[in-house]
Amino acid sequence: MLPADTSLIDALVAALPEGSVITNPASMDAYRWDRANDPNAGTPLVVVRVTSTEEVQTVVRLAAAANVPIVPRGAGSGLSGGSTAINGCIVLSLDRMREITVDPVTRTVVSQPGAFNAEVKAAAAEHGLWYPPDPASFQFCSIGGNVATNAGGLCCVKYGVTTDYVLGMTVVLSDGRAVKLGGPKIKDVAGYSLTKLFTGSEGTLGIITEVVLRLIPAQRPPTTLVATFATLEDAMSAVLGITQAMRPSMLEFMDRVSINAVEDVTKMGLDRTAAAMLVVQSDEPAGHAGVEIAQVEALCALSNATECFFTDDLEEGEAFVVARRIAIPSVEKMGTVLMEDVGVPLPRLGDLVMGIEQISQHRDVIIAVIAHAGDGNTHPLLVVNPNDPAQQARAEIAYGEVMDLAISLGGTITGEHGVGRLKKPWLADYLGPDVLELNHRIKTALDPAGILNPGAVLDETWSTT
Amino acid sequence: MLPADTSLIDALVAALPEGSVITNPASMDAYRWDRANDPNAGTPLVVVRVTSTEEVQTVVRLAAAANVPIVPRGAGSGLSGGSTAINGCIVLSLDRMREITVDPVTRTVVSQPGAFNAEVKAAAAEHGLWYPPDPASFQFCSIGGNVATNAGGLCCVKYGVTTDYVLGMTVVLSDGRAVKLGGPKIKDVAGYSLTKLFTGSEGTLGIITEVVLRLIPAQRPPTTLVATFATLEDAMSAVLGITQAMRPSMLEFMDRVSINAVEDVTKMGLDRTAAAMLVVQSDEPAGHAGVEIAQVEALCALSNATECFFTDDLEEGEAFVVARRIAIPSVEKMGTVLMEDVGVPLPRLGDLVMGIEQISQHRDVIIAVIAHAGDGNTHPLLVVNPNDPAQQARAEIAYGEVMDLAISLGGTITGEHGVGRLKKPWLADYLGPDVLELNHRIKTALDPAGILNPGAVLDETWSTT
Repeated sequence: MLPADTSLIDALVAALPEGSVITNPASMDAYRWDRANDPNAGTPLVVVRVTSTEEVQTVVRLAAAANVPIVPRGAGSGLSGGSTAINGCIVLSLDRMREITVDPVTRTVVSQPGAFNAEVKAAAAEHGLWYPPDPASFQFCSIGGNVATNAGGLCCVKYGVTTDYVLGMTVVLSDGRAVKLGGPKIKDVAGYSLTKLFTGSEGTLGIITEVVLRLIPAQRPPTTLVATFATLEDAMSAVLGITQAMRPSMLEFMDRVSINAVEDVTKMGLDRTAAAMLVVQSDEPAGHAGVEIAQVEALCALSNATECFFTDDLEEGEAFVVARRIAIPSVEKMGTVLMEDVGVPLPRLGDLVMGIEQISQHRDVIIAVIAHAGDGNTHPLLVVNPNDPAQQARAEIAYGEVMDLAISLGGTITGEHGVGRLKKPWLADYLGPDVLELNHRIKTALDPAGILNPGAVLDETWSTT
Repeated sequence: MLPADTSLIDALVAALPEGSVITNPASMDAYRWDRANDPNAGTPLVVVRVTSTEEVQTVVRLAAAANVPIVPRGAGSGLSGGSTAINGCIVLSLDRMREITVDPVTRTVVSQPGAFNAEVKAAAAEHGLWYPPDPASFQFCSIGGNVATNAGGLCCVKYGVTTDYVLGMTVVLSDGRAVKLGGPKIKDVAGYSLTKLFTGSEGTLGIITEVVLRLIPAQRPPTTLVATFATLEDAMSAVLGITQAMRPSMLEFMDRVSINAVEDVTKMGLDRTAAAMLVVQSDEPAGHAGVEIAQVEALCALSNATECFFTDDLEEGEAFVVARRIAIPSVEKMGTVLMEDVGVPLPRLGDLVMGIEQISQHRDVIIAVIAHAGDGNTHPLLVVNPNDPAQQARAEIAYGEVMDLAISLGGTITGEHGVGRLKKPWLADYLGPDVLELNHRIKTALDPAGILNPGAVLDETWSTT
């Protein structure tokens, strides 16, 4: 733990506009955690709320001179502890940087990192345009955090993830220099793909202070299908049938636990006895969405769906999407949730979901499973009674076992949330020593002093020898 | 120049299967150039044709031990001199590594680097699937080269570039270790985006020996529109009108010089008096492609198109796409061609095309311009009489002026061909010193001895001081 450095605080106060620097412990508390609620969160030396690239540069230069680490954060909605404060750090909050400028001619948006994903979507929509990536948290996650974690969402099965939309960015490097990478150019291969490298680097290689994002024409109104299944096997067979035959704009999965948790909250009449439910959308043009959804219906029937319902009524369809989106808060009503983000190649999705059920039984821990099924990306939610330390201990074992299972199935420990601090212990197993070493070489090349978000993604202490 | 190292050649012969090692100067000649015909190509020590990742590892280990540089190459169709041999190097040819395996369930293809883009497309098509990126050279460029340069093509305006389809790869590092990155998983954010970093790195960070590519359902049959314009301004106005209103699956541009060059070859009846021609396609579903193309027609009319013709006859439509594809070989019949690849943000496309016309007049050098107009990515083709050294000298000046112009318009010196050796002198101007330094840091981190394709993309001798 670094000692409180009052001279650094004084320098920050002197260099930044009034109201930028927070040192009151109670006020700093709001900046110690993201949604991962890391129990090992440290106590920052200071929290700084910046409003411009230049202010970020000032903070990084002062931090570098004092050798004090920086933990950047956007809206604090991260799920892997990438923004967990560490002792003696500067928490650099970008939440005040929220300007958004849409250029309908180049079909791009320039956004500051603190703007919410939903605000970027809304700004694009004013011009008949669409920013597709849609994490379930889109109404309260920041676009900077989305880029820093290469966030996904529900529409990714057809429209790709955040990195597919990042054309450029401004990044403050570990020595305080600011660089502009890429820009509103659709194609650019001059030099290494640094824009892509910083995307998903979780604040460990540089601090993103502006992003240039590609927009596409507004999505067509979708047709929605909901299907229930008596067994997980049947649901998985339907998923594979659908992904092989077409490209739906949404293909989401909920298991029995999550169906019941959502039904507890919504009373919308979901089938509590179903082992699984799929929510599928097609946004093909008029006349074609119906054809695609009829094909989905036939494939679900082939996989013994117990019920199938579809609608092109937007409100009715959206109700089922909302049911899927609120699965996490609904499950959270059952206890403290440890959230997973494992993904596998599609043919192994059944093995993953069935294996998770076995882990749940073996460890006697409730695990609700929701999934971006079309991407093979699942979110097992481990439900823990906070007053039952024995169960807590079993859940922590199960949490690791789920990742071990995903790795054994050729999958990843995180599909869209990031490694942060919570998943880091499993990264070496997933990547293997050689690829882990490559990651460290990149980190060392771009942040030789290790002041940018140390301990996130990679361990601080590491040596090639 | 390194001296011929017979002990290294002996070691290569001993370690590799018979027929892998070429040392005969006449036979090696075919491996000294790519399509850029770099006049400064060096003479390799040896050419090695490998058949597996393990053989690549063997070559890299022996090269690293002898401190001899390696120039990797695929089909030799590169347009920026990325595969130009350097004196005393090992040319590592991957042309024999051509296995392709399609997995229709995960909708991915695993391909060795030497397979042609067209072969990957054909293998995917057998399963009703599609690998979209389509460089004009798709029938004779290798997929490894496509990944190494992050190649583009005609369909990118709607379907993105190579990097958007690369899910994973096997790479041999500069010390001979082989690593697997990513895989057939749609989403994966565990660790840095190394797959994206190696994509477009032009063989300077590692040697790609296998790629995992994403496939999508087969493209629908397109409707094709051809429009001619009396002025470049009108054509550019139509391009901006179209890109703002919709998302065509192709939006290509040809200027008067290229129209006439193609007409000379095809006699298909193109309007030789037109200042510009657009070839536009829509692959929306039946009933919708026609609506989209009608909208394109209306926008072209608004921009004073002199003629507009559209067809949903596939053969008829394809004839115009072929006209666009053969523009380069057609222009090459007029003289030696220096090929550009500059791109700008869409609103500056008119300034770029008009500025190129001025450069052409000022330097008295014919410049034919073809463009992936919807991406703002142009290919000015400078036509030089090989027997006129004065014109050659003027063309070389004009070549640089075109890149300077693109940079001044906020554009890039290369949209899809790569920096290679021919565009390297302009990279520093484009990136600026800070981003150039970041590139060098990455290079040094991954290839500290600098044995991988030295002199491509980045200068070998470089120092931060």
